[in-house]
Amino acid sequence: MPPLRPPIVVVAPDSFKGSLAAPAVCAAIARGLRRVWPDAEIRACPMADGGEGTLDAVLSRGGQRQTMSVAGAGGAQRSAAYGIVAAPEGATAIIEAAEIVGITDPGGMATEVTARSTEGIGAMIRALVDTGVRRFMIGLGGSSTNDGGAGMLKALGLRVVDGVGRDVAPTPAGLARAARVDAGALEPRLRDCVITIMSDVNNPLCGERGATAIFGPQKGVRPESIALIDATLARYAALAEHAVGRTAALAPGAGAAGGLGFALQLVGGSFRSGAEVVADLIDLDAALERATLAFTGEGRTDRQTLLRKAPFVVAERARAAGVPITLLSGAVDAAALPELGRVFSGCFALPSGPMTLDDCIAGAEVLIVDRAEQIARVWAAARG
Amino acid sequence: MPPLRPPIVVVAPDSFKGSLAAPAVCAAIARGLRRVWPDAEIRACPMADGGEGTLDAVLSRGGQRQTMSVAGAGGAQRSAAYGIVAAPEGATAIIEAAEIVGITDPGGMATEVTARSTEGIGAMIRALVDTGVRRFMIGLGGSSTNDGGAGMLKALGLRVVDGVGRDVAPTPAGLARAARVDAGALEPRLRDCVITIMSDVNNPLCGERGATAIFGPQKGVRPESIALIDATLARYAALAEHAVGRTAALAPGAGAAGGLGFALQLVGGSFRSGAEVVADLIDLDAALERATLAFTGEGRTDRQTLLRKAPFVVAERARAAGVPITLLSGAVDAAALPELGRVFSGCFALPSGPMTLDDCIAGAEVLIVDRAEQIARVWAAARG
Repeated sequence: MPPLRPPIVVVAPDSFKGSLAAPAVCAAIARGLRRVWPDAEIRACPMADGGEGTLDAVLSRGGQRQTMSVAGAGGAQRSAAYGIVAAPEGATAIIEAAEIVGITDPGGMATEVTARSTEGIGAMIRALVDTGVRRFMIGLGGSSTNDGGAGMLKALGLRVVDGVGRDVAPTPAGLARAARVDAGALEPRLRDCVITIMSDVNNPLCGERGATAIFGPQKGVRPESIALIDATLARYAALAEHAVGRTAALAPGAGAAGGLGFALQLVGGSFRSGAEVVADLIDLDAALERATLAFTGEGRTDRQTLLRKAPFVVAERARAAGVPITLLSGAVDAAALPELGRVFSGCFALPSGPMTLDDCIAGAEVLIVDRAEQIARVWAAARG
Repeated sequence: MPPLRPPIVVVAPDSFKGSLAAPAVCAAIARGLRRVWPDAEIRACPMADGGEGTLDAVLSRGGQRQTMSVAGAGGAQRSAAYGIVAAPEGATAIIEAAEIVGITDPGGMATEVTARSTEGIGAMIRALVDTGVRRFMIGLGGSSTNDGGAGMLKALGLRVVDGVGRDVAPTPAGLARAARVDAGALEPRLRDCVITIMSDVNNPLCGERGATAIFGPQKGVRPESIALIDATLARYAALAEHAVGRTAALAPGAGAAGGLGFALQLVGGSFRSGAEVVADLIDLDAALERATLAFTGEGRTDRQTLLRKAPFVVAERARAAGVPITLLSGAVDAAALPELGRVFSGCFALPSGPMTLDDCIAGAEVLIVDRAEQIARVWAAARG
């Protein structure tokens, strides 16, 4: 037999949450593969699902990382990163809500949730519109706010006033006094913008499955305040919808990021699976061309993964390209294996034996290298 | 491309100690493989290393299981299994020392170690010699005795007497009074026998690395008794060697099974790696002919495995047959992976995520099925 050509391997994992960012996971898998195939062509395509890590994943394949000083959730100015990617349709801005109003920002979290606002996000969008950007990809994961997106809309020109005509703060506390909403000064250039909202949340803005009831508590909303804040957002949303002339509060995803999903839809944004958007931005399909095999993975894989999470999206594209794809995750839910088996050519977990979650997380990098190597050895043996 | 022929898979694991016997491991691996290759030809070859499970492994490929009533270590009669395998050279008896004087036998363990004896093993050998058997494969793992094999030799006709010519008990306590050994009545047909001793223990009978010092404590020898019992065995061994006209006490393995290794060598037995003997008895080489791939494994794999444990022996034979072999064990020591990687086409452990040892053991069967399936999926994808 003629010697086999070195394989072309696409490595497209999501981050291992709480452990390793996607680019580090890529590097570890690549290191393991090189032990078996020193000459392999390895195409690192770190993935993300629109949440934390999305910016890094997209920029790993091109584009520029920039920063802008905008208000955080608590009002203090902070330097927030965003990305600019060139595309045939014009420059595209990649924004992570968590970069501006993230739940991991101590400044924002030190402020009561009723006083937090998404104003900084609107300020960033407006500044980018000023520079000529008309395409936005906005990832909604990991926000600390629950303002129905009122802060963002205020920064974009939507005015909310109380019974005597004074502007109210774009926060749950301020919105409680809202009497009227005026869209007369709403940024007109938004009409030329294409806004893609990356989120897998399907909740509506209000009600039992709304932003406040479902995601409020983890942001600091006290149980006894849920009903009040929920009613406040509902009233504000109705006023805003009337002023803008479009409805959005009941749309799936309106409840994402404390109602930012509502506000972005109100100005024309549309939802797409974050993983699909990222796959497009990093041109995953091109990377898969003529590839021999592919790897994906995430911190933990279970049935939820099949709901279009990053590894599933990567698998669909690999299948379309005719490339077998193997899953390597921190853990794989055994109950989901029958379904996962139809999607992946092998599902593997990190542990090399009985092991605690902490040891698994602490040793993730070495475990990934080792596991990728062992899987490659099987592959190499099977190819002969 | 023409459709690939269904693969021929050799499945040759050792037992997963404390969890699953080798035949059950074979069945679980086969079940996982069949999910991917319903038409595969699966050749189940349960392996063993001469210790517990050896009889089951050998008999899984042919031969007869029989039982005989002989004395246990404590003297009470017990029904002990052995195997008879037909071979061109004549019937071969497979004996596991642990079946007769096992450390898991409560009756034997209730007796003080100084009063335990291997007499039952000698009785079984003598009875088999009476039936015409001349070939013996004796596995030494897991004994509770520390009698220097005196019990076995007594049953085979070696007489040990005290200063006034009375027979002494073939136990550490009895041997303390030994003054003279007489080999005049030693079973003469032993000279026609081929006795293969299966053990990986290399210790001599006595001294710092001897049976009593190294293995005595786990059998109940008290620290303050070690020197006394060791000296007793040394004196007995010297007398026996002189009477028989052969030396054995310093030979590697003389210290196996509390000195049974000494006694068996004294009557002409020779050591071989248990895994090698089992591989021959089950005709592993024939099973590997024209095989596509092979699996082996054990409870835990580390550097010790490379010292000719069952998975290593299987790997060597697979390599000689040109068959790639993958390791699937309960746990794989990460530190040993660089060396293991030169022996196996992929080393995998059971856990599907963070997991305790107890959960791993309790769930071993399902975990083996799942893991084998996932490895087969990689293999199937690589074959195209």
